[in-house]
Amino acid sequence: MAFQLLNGRELSLTVLTEIAAGVRKLIAAGRRAPHLVAVLVGNDLASETYVAGKMRACEQCGFRSTTLRFGNDVTQAELLAAIAALNADDEVDGFIVQLPLPPHIAEQAVIEAIDPRKDVDGFHPMNVGRLSIGLPCFVGATPLGLITLLDRYGIDTTGKHCVVVGRSNIVGKPTAMLLMQKSNPGNCTVTVCHSATPDLARYTRMADILITAVGQPGLITSSMVSEGVVVLDVGITRQPCATARSGYRLVGDVDFDDVAPHCAAITPVPGGVGPMTIASLMRNTYLAATANPLDQS
Amino acid sequence: MAFQLLNGRELSLTVLTEIAAGVRKLIAAGRRAPHLVAVLVGNDLASETYVAGKMRACEQCGFRSTTLRFGNDVTQAELLAAIAALNADDEVDGFIVQLPLPPHIAEQAVIEAIDPRKDVDGFHPMNVGRLSIGLPCFVGATPLGLITLLDRYGIDTTGKHCVVVGRSNIVGKPTAMLLMQKSNPGNCTVTVCHSATPDLARYTRMADILITAVGQPGLITSSMVSEGVVVLDVGITRQPCATARSGYRLVGDVDFDDVAPHCAAITPVPGGVGPMTIASLMRNTYLAATANPLDQS
Repeated sequence: MAFQLLNGRELSLTVLTEIAAGVRKLIAAGRRAPHLVAVLVGNDLASETYVAGKMRACEQCGFRSTTLRFGNDVTQAELLAAIAALNADDEVDGFIVQLPLPPHIAEQAVIEAIDPRKDVDGFHPMNVGRLSIGLPCFVGATPLGLITLLDRYGIDTTGKHCVVVGRSNIVGKPTAMLLMQKSNPGNCTVTVCHSATPDLARYTRMADILITAVGQPGLITSSMVSEGVVVLDVGITRQPCATARSGYRLVGDVDFDDVAPHCAAITPVPGGVGPMTIASLMRNTYLAATANPLDQS
Repeated sequence: MAFQLLNGRELSLTVLTEIAAGVRKLIAAGRRAPHLVAVLVGNDLASETYVAGKMRACEQCGFRSTTLRFGNDVTQAELLAAIAALNADDEVDGFIVQLPLPPHIAEQAVIEAIDPRKDVDGFHPMNVGRLSIGLPCFVGATPLGLITLLDRYGIDTTGKHCVVVGRSNIVGKPTAMLLMQKSNPGNCTVTVCHSATPDLARYTRMADILITAVGQPGLITSSMVSEGVVVLDVGITRQPCATARSGYRLVGDVDFDDVAPHCAAITPVPGGVGPMTIASLMRNTYLAATANPLDQS
């Protein structure tokens, strides 16, 4: 069966280009460029890479961007003071605190200190709650990326059975909430599976749309899906690979070569959901600067 | 098959009795009784009845209770001022604004004006968001009532497939969120069905635990369930009834006589979920006065 490749790399460029066009209009109208600040604590290599990618995307969009660095020994009080300053700064439209934080800092206290109107990661309970209720909000970057993929590739979701594997706060739970809303994309019958689900295949085989976000390479094989399924693979795991220049390769939760021939559409890993996540963060920052969802009801 | 009747009327009395014992201890320790305020706008008969029931339950618990009445013509500004006063009043532990409100008042603005620490209905996005994230919060009275029924009747939920019919903000969505958490009760594989679900029976027949909250009498029949299912029926609809003294009777979404023989356990309507809802509001008020969940992480 010929499957449609859901090319997140390509679509993310389209989204970034659209945002850049919007920014040029803002500036032509005499307004300043949107401004995203990333708060980076310590020197975790992965965090450095993620933040660098986000700052690069800001450049592509014509945003102003700032990385605010703190040492690994920053106190929680110092970090909260910095967040209060960002909340109060009219020149900052949105900001993110790159996770994870060092163990001596209470992550949830930090997240809840962010003004929900500047919480472009969508992690604050106000945004999570408004998402659940079905109100305008900052939708987390990964769920927003997934929705955008479905939307832009014209995949009809109404009445479809969407099976989400994984119940994380960052992907599984908000994605399930989004897709069950009376909206488009949305209106799915949604099933959430996770580590306590016995016989996972019983559910995945029922899926019209299958979303996996667990980080278990090869978890989903062809015997676990039905013909014509749409698969969105959020899992990204580094696997050692002798033939790769870097010594490793990135793999998803889905055994792509085995599953793809049975799909109507599927995201590759890498180049699927990943790039859409960064594009969605840019989208949220643009919204923060132009039409804050927290001001809408 | 002999089924267990999940007697919410009986269990709610047990819960109220436990709370009353807690209140006696508080008072013996020199503290004041918990205080719940109900804000009642207009003179909707159903709202009057609901609020009266809640005030009666306060009495059973030994709570102080106050009903704050406003005419149908109250302005939104006046209502918001009253809420600000309740937020600031140290003698008020929790309060509810009885819904629905007159159409000239923006319900969501009113809900979001309530201090989440006093939002014993659990409708504020902060509480909804913290519920979704899995943090301590005020859980809405109906979802909390459902969880309490499962818990106190010793119904194991881990690994079970819970099918929720209905995606309301008050019942369906928060109940689904609660039951998918890594907690006990919880740890269910959860499916949410709704008006856009084709072939509802395909899902309900898979349910180990079936929760319906749509308000369609007789929606669930025996052909739609599997043997040994646990059924919690949140639906309450008034049906005209010639033989009833009042001229009507209350019926749930489940055709009880048809379905019950196939169940391991089932709630009656009335006397099932309904009384648990009020008991759960009392539980939340007690928590607000003694161990506010918003202060915990």
